Amino acid sequence: MGERTDGVDEFAGSIFERQGFMRTIGAELEEVEPGRVVASMVPTDAVTQQDGFVHAAAIAGLLDTVCGGAAYTLMSPGFGVLTVEYKINLLAPARGDRIVGTGLVIRTGRTISVCRGEAIAYRGAEAKTVAVMQATMMAVPAGDA
Amino acid sequence: MGERTDGVDEFAGSIFERQGFMRTIGAELEEVEPGRVVASMVPTDAVTQQDGFVHAAAIAGLLDTVCGGAAYTLMSPGFGVLTVEYKINLLAPARGDRIVGTGLVIRTGRTISVCRGEAIAYRGAEAKTVAVMQATMMAVPAGDA
Amino acid sequence: MGERTDGVDEFAGSIFERQGFMRTIGAELEEVEPGRVVASMVPTDAVTQQDGFVHAAAIAGLLDTVCGGAAYTLMSPGFGVLTVEYKINLLAPARGDRIVGTGLVIRTGRTISVCRGEAIAYRGAEAKTVAVMQATMMAVPAGDA
Amino acid sequence: MGERTDGVDEFAGSIFERQGFMRTIGAELEEVEPGRVVASMVPTDAVTQQDGFVHAAAIAGLLDTVCGGAAYTLMSPGFGVLTVEYKINLLAPARGDRIVGTGLVIRTGRTISVCRGEAIAYRGAEAKTVAVMQATMMAVPAGDA
Repeated sequence: MGERTDGVDEFAGSIFERQGFMRTIGAELEEVEPGRVVASMVPTDAVTQQDGFVHAAAIAGLLDTVCGGAAYTLMSPGFGVLTVEYKINLLAPARGDRIVGTGLVIRTGRTISVCRGEAIAYRGAEAKTVAVMQATMMAVPAGDA
Repeated sequence: MGERTDGVDEFAGSIFERQGFMRTIGAELEEVEPGRVVASMVPTDAVTQQDGFVHAAAIAGLLDTVCGGAAYTLMSPGFGVLTVEYKINLLAPARGDRIVGTGLVIRTGRTISVCRGEAIAYRGAEAKTVAVMQATMMAVPAGDA
Repeated sequence: MGERTDGVDEFAGSIFERQGFMRTIGAELEEVEPGRVVASMVPTDAVTQQDGFVHAAAIAGLLDTVCGGAAYTLMSPGFGVLTVEYKINLLAPARGDRIVGTGLVIRTGRTISVCRGEAIAYRGAEAKTVAVMQATMMAVPAGDA
Repeated sequence: MGERTDGVDEFAGSIFERQGFMRTIGAELEEVEPGRVVASMVPTDAVTQQDGFVHAAAIAGLLDTVCGGAAYTLMSPGFGVLTVEYKINLLAPARGDRIVGTGLVIRTGRTISVCRGEAIAYRGAEAKTVAVMQATMMAVPAGDA
């Protein structure tokens, strides 16, 4: 699998431009490499329930973003990424100081990419996988995205 | 399928208590009947991208909530609902004055319920289905939820 | 949504050609209309467990076929259909004299179609929904399928 | 995660008893360890299309079995396993001399287990991942399974 020629900075910028939601949930891009993107969020009141748990929709949004980002890194220049569908299993209530989401490309094609996402909640010294995702992404000419 | 003996008001309260996220995304409960829950949201900047589209995570959160709520209405008294997993297909960019999400129970069991969710975006006179969900919910003794 | 110009017979033939598995599980096409395909199977030893239940993989194969078929009916002439992914919930053990699977198109696009499948087991006078599917299909130029 | 006290032989026997379909598709159990099960199949005419590809339903059945088996190895004695749902992405047409399916437990709980499945097709010296699955399994008292 090749690597896009556009640099990481442009990519990071584009993902934040495309996904203002990343800011809403307080997420930050951590790592970008071909076929793999990591982002983290420090839970705030905006995504936390009164019981202190992060809402599943925020976790899903984080994983959707890193999966889409990972697929993007392997697409041909001039193409944007669109989420076709995803499936998420919620493994445990997400509570923690920091949630880290990793998106990994399993298969990349001309049109369809398949990715796997995993969210880990860190709470002091403890790390717990709180959700896993399997997602289908589509490459679309940038103007159509 | 029977109906829970607790009234709609208590239920509506409990779902909002449990799902503060509904307030975050500006969602309101519209209808509650046994096996079916409808909620709507008027997109605000908190969930809207700069391109005017509602972020998929907000749609997913809305559908997760109405599916969980629908499952809840058919569970035995004393049980809460937990989302085990869901799968969502994003059919079209979600833009509109109002997004309406409907959750419907397909199968209810002692432990596992299966639900279907559908989100329709209304924009002036136009209505468009923007997402469909198939979700698995679990009944848990209220203290464990 | 338009209708393909190729007739039902050609379509039925093509689906059976493409899906020899339909014969293996003893399935027969029942109805084909634009956006909707129905097929049934009479469980034989080849797909039945010693406990008399039809194996989930046969149900999944039946629903995959009717969903793919339904998507096919709305695709442009010259295009074949490929299953990108599906998600299936098994609602109850499948036992019966006859299993009927219905595939319905929820959304059709130039490349991606989304379908819903439902399998009902008939046993004497009783009918029971045993599985539901949400599937993503892709249109591919006939030569690439 | 603990290990069941019942031995591998009993387990292998039970999985074949429960899943006669494994014989139908010509599958054989390869490895069983706590939280991980591997099985392989040598494609025969029963599961192969006229184009030489293995039908997706056979792949799904193989992965469903190894995922269920993997979940089973970590369940409490006296419990059987039931597939609640799964989602499968078909990554490439499955052609080969041998298909190997691996099921891995991601999360095990008192009631719900979540597993990941992967099918690799071997064709001469070439190995290709042809499908990935994310599945939800449920522990049920042996009598209810």
